[in-house]
Amino acid sequence: MQEKNRFKLTIEYDGSGLAGWQAQDNSYSVQEALQSSLFKATGQEIEVTGAGRTDAGVHALGQVAHLDLENWNEFKLKEAMNFYLRHDKKLPLPQQIAVINAEIAPAEFHARFDAIKRHYLYRIINRREHLTLEANRAWHIIEELNVEKMQGAARILLGKHDFSSFRSSECQAKSPVKTLDEIEITQNGTVIEFNISARSFLHHQVRNIVGSLRLIGNGKWQVEDLKKALAAQDRKCAGETAPAHGLYLIKIDY
Amino acid sequence: MQEKNRFKLTIEYDGSGLAGWQAQDNSYSVQEALQSSLFKATGQEIEVTGAGRTDAGVHALGQVAHLDLENWNEFKLKEAMNFYLRHDKKLPLPQQIAVINAEIAPAEFHARFDAIKRHYLYRIINRREHLTLEANRAWHIIEELNVEKMQGAARILLGKHDFSSFRSSECQAKSPVKTLDEIEITQNGTVIEFNISARSFLHHQVRNIVGSLRLIGNGKWQVEDLKKALAAQDRKCAGETAPAHGLYLIKIDY
Repeated sequence: MQEKNRFKLTIEYDGSGLAGWQAQDNSYSVQEALQSSLFKATGQEIEVTGAGRTDAGVHALGQVAHLDLENWNEFKLKEAMNFYLRHDKKLPLPQQIAVINAEIAPAEFHARFDAIKRHYLYRIINRREHLTLEANRAWHIIEELNVEKMQGAARILLGKHDFSSFRSSECQAKSPVKTLDEIEITQNGTVIEFNISARSFLHHQVRNIVGSLRLIGNGKWQVEDLKKALAAQDRKCAGETAPAHGLYLIKIDY
Repeated sequence: MQEKNRFKLTIEYDGSGLAGWQAQDNSYSVQEALQSSLFKATGQEIEVTGAGRTDAGVHALGQVAHLDLENWNEFKLKEAMNFYLRHDKKLPLPQQIAVINAEIAPAEFHARFDAIKRHYLYRIINRREHLTLEANRAWHIIEELNVEKMQGAARILLGKHDFSSFRSSECQAKSPVKTLDEIEITQNGTVIEFNISARSFLHHQVRNIVGSLRLIGNGKWQVEDLKKALAAQDRKCAGETAPAHGLYLIKIDY
């Protein structure tokens, strides 16, 4: 008699050069790399279901996924997956993906549908000179951004709204209505960080919000323009999509 | 009549894959890359004198250097050097080195000899799983480190001592006697940071100190062992040299 368990994994990755969470043509995805490590470890083709489909280039400190597997304990599973992930030559960088926690979850646990809050971080480096250690880890913006103005304007996005203006045309969500729980903007020297959380997001929602707040920060928009953009319910009325490499999936609450 | 100026540069770099500050066989150094950008910008072979010769793999947020040049202003110099640094195909990574400040200094200013304090940061990530975003940016140590014990033991290294036990055999300093001004150790989750400052350091001194404090942290050494290692004035009596990629030259005071 075999014991089948549902495992909950917490996963960290450097998104540089990756296709994102989900398998796409031509480039290697986080999901494929995890499934490949599971196949090498167990000899079985096992599907890994992620909490959020991060885009190509997006980083994660706390992506969550689940899978079903018989006769393995959580420590050995993490160790075996990490061994094969460290040695996966299909990853663009050495040591690009790590399973940082594995635990046995209730049989009905679902990484995507059971999430009650998703926490994202978006990082901007605001300076003239090009980035070195922060290249591919933050959005480099040269023109000076006024953080106080961005903080003030961001408040109007809090709460429940139709976020159609901040939704990618490829978004598959049934409704454009989402509830933004938190949007905190902090500055430390040249580093500007946006901590944004909600139960769930539309595709590109965080990046489109940051792209619009940049227009507030550099003075091209006033608060009224952001209000109008939100009310328009039309993607063409909001700012550009901020680049993927400034975005981090930090944590998911269940 | 040409006006000759001494310029003070502040330089940031990701040390990964670089030969370090100084030119060496086979690999490209920070000094060479800066001099190459100056040659491309000015048509002149200009020597750049750095404050500290960081080793291969060591990072810098605030390396300082000086050079002499006629008929350039500081803004244009920074812009021109950064243009050629961004496009330098001999650098292992794109955007690896940036000049983050350039200013005109007194004619007698010397980046190396006028420094009154050098600030280094050493970073450890203390966890079982391999590093992803922090790969090449911190020392990965698996066994659990006791930070309080390291903090306590580090105090005995403060002040003026003969640091022969923490000195590389290749060190060219005249005397092994140095005065350590600060060694502050902090922990935030899995990240352990050492902030260490002094007027000047012996070659590998910071890395050898961290390698020895690790032995305190993992319980292989007691405080007495560190005292003995210091008193022995013999490199063989101290811990291993911590890897270069955890070390950052943060700031130099003048």
